[in-house]
Amino acid sequence: MIELNSKIPSKHKELPKCSTGINGLDEITKGGLPKARPTLVCGTAGCGKTLLAMEFLVRGAVQYNEPGVFIAFEETPEELTENVASLGWDLKQLSAENKISIDHIHIDPEEFQEVGEYDLEALFIRLGCAIDQIGAKRIVLDTIEVLFSGLSNAAIIRSELRRLFRWLKTKGVTAIITAERGDSSLTRQGLEEYVSDCVIRLDQRIEEEVSTRRLQIIKYRGSSHGSNEYPFLISENGISVMPHYFCGFGP
Amino acid sequence: MIELNSKIPSKHKELPKCSTGINGLDEITKGGLPKARPTLVCGTAGCGKTLLAMEFLVRGAVQYNEPGVFIAFEETPEELTENVASLGWDLKQLSAENKISIDHIHIDPEEFQEVGEYDLEALFIRLGCAIDQIGAKRIVLDTIEVLFSGLSNAAIIRSELRRLFRWLKTKGVTAIITAERGDSSLTRQGLEEYVSDCVIRLDQRIEEEVSTRRLQIIKYRGSSHGSNEYPFLISENGISVMPHYFCGFGP
Amino acid sequence: MIELNSKIPSKHKELPKCSTGINGLDEITKGGLPKARPTLVCGTAGCGKTLLAMEFLVRGAVQYNEPGVFIAFEETPEELTENVASLGWDLKQLSAENKISIDHIHIDPEEFQEVGEYDLEALFIRLGCAIDQIGAKRIVLDTIEVLFSGLSNAAIIRSELRRLFRWLKTKGVTAIITAERGDSSLTRQGLEEYVSDCVIRLDQRIEEEVSTRRLQIIKYRGSSHGSNEYPFLISENGISVMPHYFCGFGP
Amino acid sequence: MIELNSKIPSKHKELPKCSTGINGLDEITKGGLPKARPTLVCGTAGCGKTLLAMEFLVRGAVQYNEPGVFIAFEETPEELTENVASLGWDLKQLSAENKISIDHIHIDPEEFQEVGEYDLEALFIRLGCAIDQIGAKRIVLDTIEVLFSGLSNAAIIRSELRRLFRWLKTKGVTAIITAERGDSSLTRQGLEEYVSDCVIRLDQRIEEEVSTRRLQIIKYRGSSHGSNEYPFLISENGISVMPHYFCGFGP
Amino acid sequence: MIELNSKIPSKHKELPKCSTGINGLDEITKGGLPKARPTLVCGTAGCGKTLLAMEFLVRGAVQYNEPGVFIAFEETPEELTENVASLGWDLKQLSAENKISIDHIHIDPEEFQEVGEYDLEALFIRLGCAIDQIGAKRIVLDTIEVLFSGLSNAAIIRSELRRLFRWLKTKGVTAIITAERGDSSLTRQGLEEYVSDCVIRLDQRIEEEVSTRRLQIIKYRGSSHGSNEYPFLISENGISVMPHYFCGFGP
Amino acid sequence: MIELNSKIPSKHKELPKCSTGINGLDEITKGGLPKARPTLVCGTAGCGKTLLAMEFLVRGAVQYNEPGVFIAFEETPEELTENVASLGWDLKQLSAENKISIDHIHIDPEEFQEVGEYDLEALFIRLGCAIDQIGAKRIVLDTIEVLFSGLSNAAIIRSELRRLFRWLKTKGVTAIITAERGDSSLTRQGLEEYVSDCVIRLDQRIEEEVSTRRLQIIKYRGSSHGSNEYPFLISENGISVMPHYFCGFGP
Repeated sequence: MIELNSKIPSKHKELPKCSTGINGLDEITKGGLPKARPTLVCGTAGCGKTLLAMEFLVRGAVQYNEPGVFIAFEETPEELTENVASLGWDLKQLSAENKISIDHIHIDPEEFQEVGEYDLEALFIRLGCAIDQIGAKRIVLDTIEVLFSGLSNAAIIRSELRRLFRWLKTKGVTAIITAERGDSSLTRQGLEEYVSDCVIRLDQRIEEEVSTRRLQIIKYRGSSHGSNEYPFLISENGISVMPHYFCGFGP
Repeated sequence: MIELNSKIPSKHKELPKCSTGINGLDEITKGGLPKARPTLVCGTAGCGKTLLAMEFLVRGAVQYNEPGVFIAFEETPEELTENVASLGWDLKQLSAENKISIDHIHIDPEEFQEVGEYDLEALFIRLGCAIDQIGAKRIVLDTIEVLFSGLSNAAIIRSELRRLFRWLKTKGVTAIITAERGDSSLTRQGLEEYVSDCVIRLDQRIEEEVSTRRLQIIKYRGSSHGSNEYPFLISENGISVMPHYFCGFGP
Repeated sequence: MIELNSKIPSKHKELPKCSTGINGLDEITKGGLPKARPTLVCGTAGCGKTLLAMEFLVRGAVQYNEPGVFIAFEETPEELTENVASLGWDLKQLSAENKISIDHIHIDPEEFQEVGEYDLEALFIRLGCAIDQIGAKRIVLDTIEVLFSGLSNAAIIRSELRRLFRWLKTKGVTAIITAERGDSSLTRQGLEEYVSDCVIRLDQRIEEEVSTRRLQIIKYRGSSHGSNEYPFLISENGISVMPHYFCGFGP
Repeated sequence: MIELNSKIPSKHKELPKCSTGINGLDEITKGGLPKARPTLVCGTAGCGKTLLAMEFLVRGAVQYNEPGVFIAFEETPEELTENVASLGWDLKQLSAENKISIDHIHIDPEEFQEVGEYDLEALFIRLGCAIDQIGAKRIVLDTIEVLFSGLSNAAIIRSELRRLFRWLKTKGVTAIITAERGDSSLTRQGLEEYVSDCVIRLDQRIEEEVSTRRLQIIKYRGSSHGSNEYPFLISENGISVMPHYFCGFGP
Repeated sequence: MIELNSKIPSKHKELPKCSTGINGLDEITKGGLPKARPTLVCGTAGCGKTLLAMEFLVRGAVQYNEPGVFIAFEETPEELTENVASLGWDLKQLSAENKISIDHIHIDPEEFQEVGEYDLEALFIRLGCAIDQIGAKRIVLDTIEVLFSGLSNAAIIRSELRRLFRWLKTKGVTAIITAERGDSSLTRQGLEEYVSDCVIRLDQRIEEEVSTRRLQIIKYRGSSHGSNEYPFLISENGISVMPHYFCGFGP
Repeated sequence: MIELNSKIPSKHKELPKCSTGINGLDEITKGGLPKARPTLVCGTAGCGKTLLAMEFLVRGAVQYNEPGVFIAFEETPEELTENVASLGWDLKQLSAENKISIDHIHIDPEEFQEVGEYDLEALFIRLGCAIDQIGAKRIVLDTIEVLFSGLSNAAIIRSELRRLFRWLKTKGVTAIITAERGDSSLTRQGLEEYVSDCVIRLDQRIEEEVSTRRLQIIKYRGSSHGSNEYPFLISENGISVMPHYFCGFGP
């Protein structure tokens, strides 16, 4: 075999990353989520998707001075605030300090059904305002199913997903989009994971009556990463991923 | 790794909870169901959904002085009264004392099929009356399948579910909604568990010809909880969950 | 934990039951099937559904002096008579003595397809006549699939099932309705078991080339019951269930 | 427990049976197939359905002096004759002696699709002629899928199946109908086994690269029978079932 | 048990067979494929279907002096020639000697969709010409999916399959038809294996990261055959089946 | 058994191959991918499809002096450039040197839905330009799902796939087409693998919480190849396949 790499012009350049501040996650991702790109966080009900996304925003705002926007399609700001209070996060105060902005967007399923094709433009305008208002560097969309459950054609969903992801990139924000599990694929449509640059899967499994939570980086375009399943806990300190099986592949 | 939590303004505030009074369940849920929010109880036929919901009401009325409303979409008040008599619960007397109110609502499947979209408003009025009449603090809807089995569009079911759940929250009642198992998801539609704040799964399994009942808290927004599978019994004292595998995560 | 049961007004009252007379079954059900309510008996082809239902009628007529009606949607009275003759049951004689009445009802699938919605009224009139004629206390409907296989809408099937079950209750007869297994649920529609008060599952399994028959009480509203899987035999004495794994939960 | 059987008028009367003459099969079925009733023989491609049905006819004609009709919906008489020649059966000679009659019926799928509902009457006339011509006591229909594959409504298929089976009974012939395996049920439609009085399943399984053939009596209305899985061979003597696991249940 | 076979007129006559010349295959099939009948060879992508079919033709032409026609619905003659060159087979030379003829037929899916029902007549004419031109005794159709993928009605596909198979028989050629695997059946439609006289399944399985190829005769009307799974290799000598588990059933 | 191969005119001629330069892959494929033919690379999200395809181009351009075109249907040239920078590949420089050309083609799903049948001609023109401009010898299409997700008819997809593959062959380029996994088949449609000359499957599996990547050559028309599953790593040197289980079949 020829020694190949000597021939290829080699200037290793790491993809810019955005620290999550979440215990263990930055270690597994070798620095955090892909900066200014969207990351998909998927899993079953109760797996901790919303919590991970919220911690990403809270730690961003508090530790890294990066304001963040949380777009909730189902829960109200009051409920979200109440839900994370047990973790000691004071969303009210963070909102008052313009570090975090929580926006509840109601999607009427009839609306985009009657039109036939859903128009994302109105959403983009609203997201844009929310981002600009506090100079957000991070954004969370929770959850993508509400946006696209009215569509049934795989080609159109795929195209709309790409349009949403591309728009987020033009805004320069690091995004987390949450998604629900499908029957035999990572997500309901089985499309989101292919279109995304980075995919994190959360899982809650029962084995001999004992429940364990696990996290896996399914995909990370442009970066090496730990690819095993890592156990994680949800405690009063938020999420703690345990990279004890970590075996590095990359530089 | 930086020590993170010192930086985040931390005022741990527990979510308000509603004691069920059910043996072992309050221990696993660290105090009961989320107060003034709906909880989904799902499982196969014969798993004990209706019994758990009824015990929640009976113990609420008797032990915690919280009147409760039971909305039955399939069984009549007489049948329900007869069914729980073997557990020593006298629903007739509790009704006479205005501690519990049982309401049978007949949903005609043709009705909401002809209209195309089901109108929950009429239901809200009726539920509202039942709640106000005895100053109910707890409510049970048994079972959600009857309400939504006439709908086939996932986006509309999701939207209607949210509307129902939101309405219940505005009434300030702690609610249990029962749901039947789906083929490969917790519920028939595979949507209810995502929309709910709290999800409890009941299960009856045969292993080597012996049957065991098990309970798991799948999801509990805003609270830590025991997340294993806990065996439970149905005896003359009602339901007894055995939190013997309990391993606390939270504060 | 508070001692709860002292607070709840407790007058344990057992649900009225109807002895089947079938070997072992009354022991497992703690007295028989729910009196004046319908019980669903489901299982694959050849599992013994029809035989169990017929033995319930024959023993009711002979041992408990309760006349019974057998509504056959597929087999003729002659065939049924011939089929149980090997068990020593003389249906001809029992019919002559007005202890058992066998009625063959032919359901024309086109009929309820053209109308769109099937009208159960005509069936109710015929069932009513058969019941009144011999003062029946027991009834068997074999098998429910023939009644509902022309319907495809889950909400309507559910509604019609409830209407049939409710009508049977108003007649005060203890009923057995047989049902065929579905792909991934107890019954073809996966609905019958939820609507029923009592569900018995029969099973015939091959393990290492040897066949075993098993019976399980899946559900029994208003009563405790053995919930394991119990082996049973079909011999010249009819069905014999072996409650050797019986572990009582109830009072 | 009360001694029950003394009370029931008991005159054990065995169902009339029709000897197959097939090695071991009459032992397992305690005398043969149900006389003057149809039996369903189902299994995957290559399991030996057609061979078993043909041997039933050949042995009936030669050993029991019962002429038989073979209705082939796919193979021609010439092909069938050639196929069984390796087993030493001379269908030509048996036809010449009027002991066996082979009839090839071509079903045009378009025919019963255009009409919407298939009319079995024409088939009944043709079958009737074939039966009367040689005074047949046995008949084989190979295979039922060709008859009903043009129908998609479960209720209509069920109804037509019953009509066919009932007609065969009125003719007083003992019938074998072959059927192909479905995805998760014994037959393609999952209906045939419920409508049939007797069901035999043939199976060819690979275990650790070795193939074994097995036969099981799934169902036998009106008769006890060995219900295990019995290995069988196809040799120059035809089919040989090995009832070595036989454990009798009946009288 | 009566000694049966003395009574049946017994003149064992073997079905005429067509030697494949493929290593081990003629041993397992006891002489080759059924002469002048079609054989179905099915399996997943890359299992060796086309190779087996081509070797059947090449060895037929070279070793048994039987010219053969290869009908390719997807690959061109040039590609096929190139593909088998690594096995040392020179299709160009064999074509020049009129021993093998390769015909590429392009089926336009729109054509038979617009008409509603596909007309096989044009195909028959073309096949007939190809056969007559070199006096072919063998033919391969690769692959049947292209022919029938435009049809969706099971009854029509079945009928058309039978028509194709019957036509091949009238031409007196021994045929191999290749077919792709279905989800839960041998073939895509799950019909082809029932209509065929002989079915061979090829399989490529990974077990603990090691791949093995296996061959099984699923069905062989009119002949006994080895019915186990036999490993096979593809080498520079073509296919070699290893009949090491062979256990003969027949005469 | 006759000694066969002496009779067949034998001039072993290897299929022309195109070296990938990827560590271990050329060894397993015995020289690389089929020259001037398309190869399908399929797998789940995050399995490394795009990376393998890109490395094939980069090494082709740098090591073998074969310019290459990358057609991206989802990612932009900027994103692709950024993503592979961590592997030390400088796509910008390679583009400037006309060794690699990256083209982003946006497929509007509505377009080919309205027309009913998608017209590949426009794509061919664009691909042709891209190829001719830099005299490309290699091409990558990433990913085929975007092209065909708007089509639902299997026969048309198959036909269009063949048309695309045939066109690529006429251009004389060695192509890699990436494809996403289907539920129970190698690809979404379950068709692509049958139409392709060469199929490589990439896989990422979790076993006891540890992730392993594996590669398998499912199919390689016209060539022997290692057919086991081979582990592979993604490191700063690109992909390294470990042919440690290699067992050669061919010449």
